[in-house]
Amino acid sequence: MPRYKLTIEYDGSTYCGWQRQKNGISVQETVERALLAFCGEEVTLFGAGRTDAGVHATGQVAHVDIARRWKTDTVRDALNAYLREEGGVAILAAEEVSDAFDARFSASKRHYLYRILNRRPPPSILKGQVWWVWRPLDVAAMDRAAKRLLGTHDFNTFRSVNCQAKNPVRTLERLDVVAAPGGEVHLHASAQSFLHNQIRSFAGSLKLVGEGRWSEGDLVAALESRDRKRCGPVAPPDGLYLTRVDYAPEATWGVPRAAPASPASPDRHAEEIGDGGEGEE
Amino acid sequence: MPRYKLTIEYDGSTYCGWQRQKNGISVQETVERALLAFCGEEVTLFGAGRTDAGVHATGQVAHVDIARRWKTDTVRDALNAYLREEGGVAILAAEEVSDAFDARFSASKRHYLYRILNRRPPPSILKGQVWWVWRPLDVAAMDRAAKRLLGTHDFNTFRSVNCQAKNPVRTLERLDVVAAPGGEVHLHASAQSFLHNQIRSFAGSLKLVGEGRWSEGDLVAALESRDRKRCGPVAPPDGLYLTRVDYAPEATWGVPRAAPASPASPDRHAEEIGDGGEGEE
Repeated sequence: MPRYKLTIEYDGSTYCGWQRQKNGISVQETVERALLAFCGEEVTLFGAGRTDAGVHATGQVAHVDIARRWKTDTVRDALNAYLREEGGVAILAAEEVSDAFDARFSASKRHYLYRILNRRPPPSILKGQVWWVWRPLDVAAMDRAAKRLLGTHDFNTFRSVNCQAKNPVRTLERLDVVAAPGGEVHLHASAQSFLHNQIRSFAGSLKLVGEGRWSEGDLVAALESRDRKRCGPVAPPDGLYLTRVDYAPEATWGVPRAAPASPASPDRHAEEIGDGGEGEE
Repeated sequence: MPRYKLTIEYDGSTYCGWQRQKNGISVQETVERALLAFCGEEVTLFGAGRTDAGVHATGQVAHVDIARRWKTDTVRDALNAYLREEGGVAILAAEEVSDAFDARFSASKRHYLYRILNRRPPPSILKGQVWWVWRPLDVAAMDRAAKRLLGTHDFNTFRSVNCQAKNPVRTLERLDVVAAPGGEVHLHASAQSFLHNQIRSFAGSLKLVGEGRWSEGDLVAALESRDRKRCGPVAPPDGLYLTRVDYAPEATWGVPRAAPASPASPDRHAEEIGDGGEGEE
């Protein structure tokens, strides 16, 4: 049975998040419905990261098994035809991959962008697509402080109390804060995996640094406390974009994962490799 | 009575256009309501260009007279507070100007951007903010052809049949077609004034050039025919943004205009200077 890797873009503001839920329509369900309309099969789509309600993606990756073999361009175009009325999701690419490929567990790095609109007037055209921060931000100070978060740390301060990961240790590979056109400030974050709300917690805390309300030392102290209560405000989902997921070479892909690990037998693979980070939201 | 110049940004997709209309809520009316809530006065807002439904602005300019003198920052912030719930309009700046200033008739140049998303998959996050063209566009060919439209011409081919301007001659000062990040193609157009639907007519015709369906010569022949039926498809409003309005030095501002010219006495000033172009839409 052929497996397809889909690269997916979506406007998170109209969905209850990536993952299928009882209340509201998810991106996953929306694409699964398009797959049903296209190939007549009830299939399950597995995403690289479980983004929260309101969080966008310009490069989410998912895999799905379809009984019949189709040309990849046909898969992309047909799904887009079914998704077009919906309007909030687009399939950017479809590729056929081996069944060793798992969108979540084969991922070697996840890249996120957090967009802040830093100006006195509120957003209009970009409403829902940025976090509006009206106090002028010291971008250089934010970037310097961000560098103190790089590397391997217990990031308990910067994760949601609802985070399911057993191990709060992650390795942050990139956290850059840069000025962008149109009065925007962008945070670029990369890691193999992230904790639930980790980037939104970084964004909210770095905003305090940018406003001069926290020093770089305050940020480091918050990190070292491993105390969730020491986190700054959690930034809203509006500004967050899952922009890219990298995959290791095919030879390193593991065997497909059959079922989620039970709490009784913690699955280190899932725990340390597979957590989609903001993908655990 | 102090006169204020407002610089206004809006998401055109939720309004029936700039100008007050019987059906639907206009941007003009939305800001006038905020002015009423702010200063308790029923005032009239005069815009530099009358954008159509669905057309956006990042730099619309309007003027308004208010009985009481306020700090300009207060005008901007108070209006934004009243507009925030609305969400589709933001006041970027407020300045006090002399009563010789007229947002429409003192304008010396209008600048527009037309955004095309040129890729096979339809837009999701940018839905309503770009024109989706899936055939690959030859941007260099479009830019070369665009240059043939520069200068002073009878642009009858490229204006709506509903265009109110008596004189279809305009002087096009800039028309650049450039590749932009994210798979976008941008048209930058500048002139003292434009005809109704002029830029959307340019965009639709240049798209045919970019797809290789029209040669540069076809575009020139369409211009020279002065025949509306020779125009390419009119591009949708989604991609159009009024980005900036320039004003001549204060010394050259005329006296405030009392009433529209009647058809019996054509007003050359209104005809040739004041037409807001896409602002006549």
